[in-house]
Amino acid sequence: MQAEGQVSVIGLGDMGSAIARMFVGRGYATTVWNRTASKTAPLTEAGATAAATPADAVAASPLTVLCLLDGAAVEEVLAALDGAVAGKVLVNVTSCSPAQARANERWAHEHGAEYLDGKVMGDPPYIGTANIMLPFSGSHDVFKAHEATLAELGPITYHGEDAGFAAVEFLAQVAVSYELLIGFLHTLKLVQAEGFDVAEFAKRIADSLTAYPPLLTTMANAVQNGDYAPDMGPLNVQAALMDDMITHRESRGVEALRMREVKKLMDARIAEGHGDQGFSSLFELLPVARDQLS
Amino acid sequence: MQAEGQVSVIGLGDMGSAIARMFVGRGYATTVWNRTASKTAPLTEAGATAAATPADAVAASPLTVLCLLDGAAVEEVLAALDGAVAGKVLVNVTSCSPAQARANERWAHEHGAEYLDGKVMGDPPYIGTANIMLPFSGSHDVFKAHEATLAELGPITYHGEDAGFAAVEFLAQVAVSYELLIGFLHTLKLVQAEGFDVAEFAKRIADSLTAYPPLLTTMANAVQNGDYAPDMGPLNVQAALMDDMITHRESRGVEALRMREVKKLMDARIAEGHGDQGFSSLFELLPVARDQLS
Repeated sequence: MQAEGQVSVIGLGDMGSAIARMFVGRGYATTVWNRTASKTAPLTEAGATAAATPADAVAASPLTVLCLLDGAAVEEVLAALDGAVAGKVLVNVTSCSPAQARANERWAHEHGAEYLDGKVMGDPPYIGTANIMLPFSGSHDVFKAHEATLAELGPITYHGEDAGFAAVEFLAQVAVSYELLIGFLHTLKLVQAEGFDVAEFAKRIADSLTAYPPLLTTMANAVQNGDYAPDMGPLNVQAALMDDMITHRESRGVEALRMREVKKLMDARIAEGHGDQGFSSLFELLPVARDQLS
Repeated sequence: MQAEGQVSVIGLGDMGSAIARMFVGRGYATTVWNRTASKTAPLTEAGATAAATPADAVAASPLTVLCLLDGAAVEEVLAALDGAVAGKVLVNVTSCSPAQARANERWAHEHGAEYLDGKVMGDPPYIGTANIMLPFSGSHDVFKAHEATLAELGPITYHGEDAGFAAVEFLAQVAVSYELLIGFLHTLKLVQAEGFDVAEFAKRIADSLTAYPPLLTTMANAVQNGDYAPDMGPLNVQAALMDDMITHRESRGVEALRMREVKKLMDARIAEGHGDQGFSSLFELLPVARDQLS
């Protein structure tokens, strides 16, 4: 909680404001800028200094955190910075694509600045606590040089020199989350139609999640080694179960999109003579990513 | 581990054999039958008695466990039992649909027998241990009368008088599992294409699962009450993230089936004026189950 230095924060939405407030609270000389100037008031009252332009904000500190609405807003701010960034470090924690992060890094390097890309996995109230996670990527030297400042945000992890990797990590983790949650919602529709207590069912699903960590790592190792044990039982047995699931869901008017996909993949894998392998072997039949084709 | 009584087991696949072996080991006078008679040898060597017909097996004990390949195999065995079941209890733990379970119960009642339906959530080696789960449904009186014997199989839960509910529970739980796992596999393809270490990524996903139990129960409560707080942030913010995910996945040749569905649902919910609500509010837009239409 002692003054460790100076930091600037560009963008004072919920997340940017939480970040700036945390730095102020921990004794950093904090400079802020926001397109709508009125948003700076709560921060300047707390002790931050408002900059007149993004360029002024960047000039005020060795390290500037960019926390904007989206990748397009970042591009706009970068364009406004122009020459003001030489010798500075830009840390972008705005949600964006890996390609945008890589483009931001190129822009920074072309303008004599360092660049790190980070993503915030969690909600604004948790900034500065252990209940949030921030993957970072980009130059390892720059990351190490500013690790103490970045660690003020919460638990941070480093994912490699490729500036796009923090975004890859974020998008991939969030994707698994949405896959689980949309499947969960559809299945709530199923059990509700059957007359179950939806909240009680959710508790049982919540309890069942403790079984997954070993299964997920087993499956990933199988994928990495191409050696597919019958992880959830052999496909020959699992495929029969899929039919029951599809029939049941359709009988209740509940969608069975993924179940039909999984059944199709299982049938194809069995037809290839791999009915003794497990679910993870379906990985072999998933669309081939473009980079692997080259 | 003391003799508690007599039990019969019909069907000696991996699961049925594990069940019969467990009962023998715990001192039950165990009678077994299997269509392919050679499969009875390891059990009779262990101390079980082989019955010549399914009817003989049912006649030998007050309670018979049916553990067959699928619902059709159960029907076949029931047809062969005919009159031999009056006064007996049939406990079907074969994978089948809720409708098949209900039909089995009707058949049993028509023939003067009691019926319970159970499902085995776990693998044969875990029969008789705490690392397996068996939901049961059907007559509560019959369940209570035979609870001690059924509990030999592992942790058991009771889901209601409707004989189909054990199958509903099983199919719904397994569906959520497959939703998570197929989404996970597709995303492994994504991170592999990006050059990530697949096993390390899986470990991070495994670690992240501890965050879900409170989220799942919050979402189910929201669904039950129709009161949708911004659980994972407001839809207005989440929808922008979806575009990044879809674009990124497509740029790597990785499917984005669920992400496109979720985006479409989010857009529709926002258009209805609910952009301030959370992910769980998408439940309102999911296909309406048939029973609710009537």
